[in-house]
Amino acid sequence: MRVEPLERALDYHFQRPQLLKQALTHRSFSADNNERLEFLGDSILNMVIAMALYQRFGSLREGDMSRLRAQLVRQDALQHVAELLDLGSFLSLGEGELKSGGHRRPSILADALEAVFGAIYLDAGFEAVKRVVDSLYAEKLADLDPERSLKDPKTSLQEALQARRLPLPQYAMADERGEAHAREFEVHCVIDSLKIRTAGVGATRRIAEQLAAAAALQKLELA
Amino acid sequence: MRVEPLERALDYHFQRPQLLKQALTHRSFSADNNERLEFLGDSILNMVIAMALYQRFGSLREGDMSRLRAQLVRQDALQHVAELLDLGSFLSLGEGELKSGGHRRPSILADALEAVFGAIYLDAGFEAVKRVVDSLYAEKLADLDPERSLKDPKTSLQEALQARRLPLPQYAMADERGEAHAREFEVHCVIDSLKIRTAGVGATRRIAEQLAAAAALQKLELA
Repeated sequence: MRVEPLERALDYHFQRPQLLKQALTHRSFSADNNERLEFLGDSILNMVIAMALYQRFGSLREGDMSRLRAQLVRQDALQHVAELLDLGSFLSLGEGELKSGGHRRPSILADALEAVFGAIYLDAGFEAVKRVVDSLYAEKLADLDPERSLKDPKTSLQEALQARRLPLPQYAMADERGEAHAREFEVHCVIDSLKIRTAGVGATRRIAEQLAAAAALQKLELA
Repeated sequence: MRVEPLERALDYHFQRPQLLKQALTHRSFSADNNERLEFLGDSILNMVIAMALYQRFGSLREGDMSRLRAQLVRQDALQHVAELLDLGSFLSLGEGELKSGGHRRPSILADALEAVFGAIYLDAGFEAVKRVVDSLYAEKLADLDPERSLKDPKTSLQEALQARRLPLPQYAMADERGEAHAREFEVHCVIDSLKIRTAGVGATRRIAEQLAAAAALQKLELA
C-alpha cells in the first residue's frame, strides 16, 4: 500500500514509515497493531485541542472548554476527519473486518486517526503533531460557536421547532432494563408534525432524553 | 510572596512570573484564578504520563496503561507531589478558605499543581513542561510495578490476608441512597481479626466494595 497520498493529506512526511504502518494496522490484522499508539494519540489530541480552545476562547470557563472539547474529540468528529483523509483505504484489517466493511466503521477509523497522531509524535515530536492536529481541526475550530454548541440538545430542539412554528416534541419512556447497578433507560423523542421518531439510551432518563433530542435535532437539520 | 523556593523545587524559572501567580490563585481569592490553567495542565499531565508509560512499558496494553495512568494522575497522587513542593504555602486563597485550612485541602493542591503545569507550558512550551513533569514523577514511575498495581484491591487484600494466614474480609452493604439516576452504595469491609473496618461509597456495589477493600489494604499496610 502506497501511503504517499495519505502523507500528502496529512501534510506530513514520516521519517520512520514503520510508525505510520503500525498506526494503520488494526488488531484484527496483527498483534503488532495500533492500540498502544492510539492510547498515546488520544492524550495528544486532548491536549492540543485543550490548548486551541484555551487560546481561542479567552473567556470560557473550564467546564465549558471541557464540553466543547468533548464534542471535538468524540467518535463522530474523529470519523469525519478520518474520512476527509480517506484513512479507511490505508488500513490493514483482518479478513473478517474487511468483509464486514471495517474500513468504514466509525470506531476503527477514529482509533486509527488517534494512532496516526501518536505515530507523528514519536516520529518528530510535539510541535510536529500539534501542527498536523491544528490544521486538521482548523475548520471545526473556526466554526465553533460556544453559545450554540453549549446549549443542551433538548433546549436546542425546542428552539428549532419554535423557530419553525411547530409544536414541541414529546418524550416517552420506551424501556427500562438492566439490573439496579447497570440500569438503562430508552426514551423516544416524537415530533408528530414531521414524522420524526428517534430513540436515546442512557444510564438516566435525563441522559436518554438528551440523546433522543440530539438525534431528532440531527434529523431536523437534515430534513 | 517570594516564589523563588517554589521555582527551585520545580527546577524551573518563569520568564513571565504573572503566569505562576495566576496558577497559584484559587477562585476564592480572585476572578482571575487558576481554573483555566488547570484545564490546560490536566491535559498536559495526562499526555506526559501517557508518553512515560508508553516508553517505559513496551508490552503493556492500552487498557493497562490507562489504569496505571489513572493511579498516577488522581487527586491523592497530585496532592502528594504538591506537598513535596510545599505548594500550599504559595497559594492565594480567599479568607474563608484560609481559615478552614484550604492550603492543605487535597482538591485545591491538586488543581493548583495542574495549573502550574499549564503555566509552564504557556511560559516555555511543551519540552519545558515535559521535563518538569517527568522529573516530579520520576520516583513514582520508577516504583511502578504493573503486576501489583493492576490487581484489583479486593484480590490484593485477599492475598495479603492469606499471606498472613488470617481469615478473609467480610463485605456488608451499609447503605443505599439517592434517587434511581444517582444511586450511591456504601459498603463496609470488615477484618475482625485486625479490628479493621473501612467504608467505600460508589455508584455500584462492586465499586463500593473495591474502594472499601482499597482503604482496608492501606490500613493493613500501615499496621
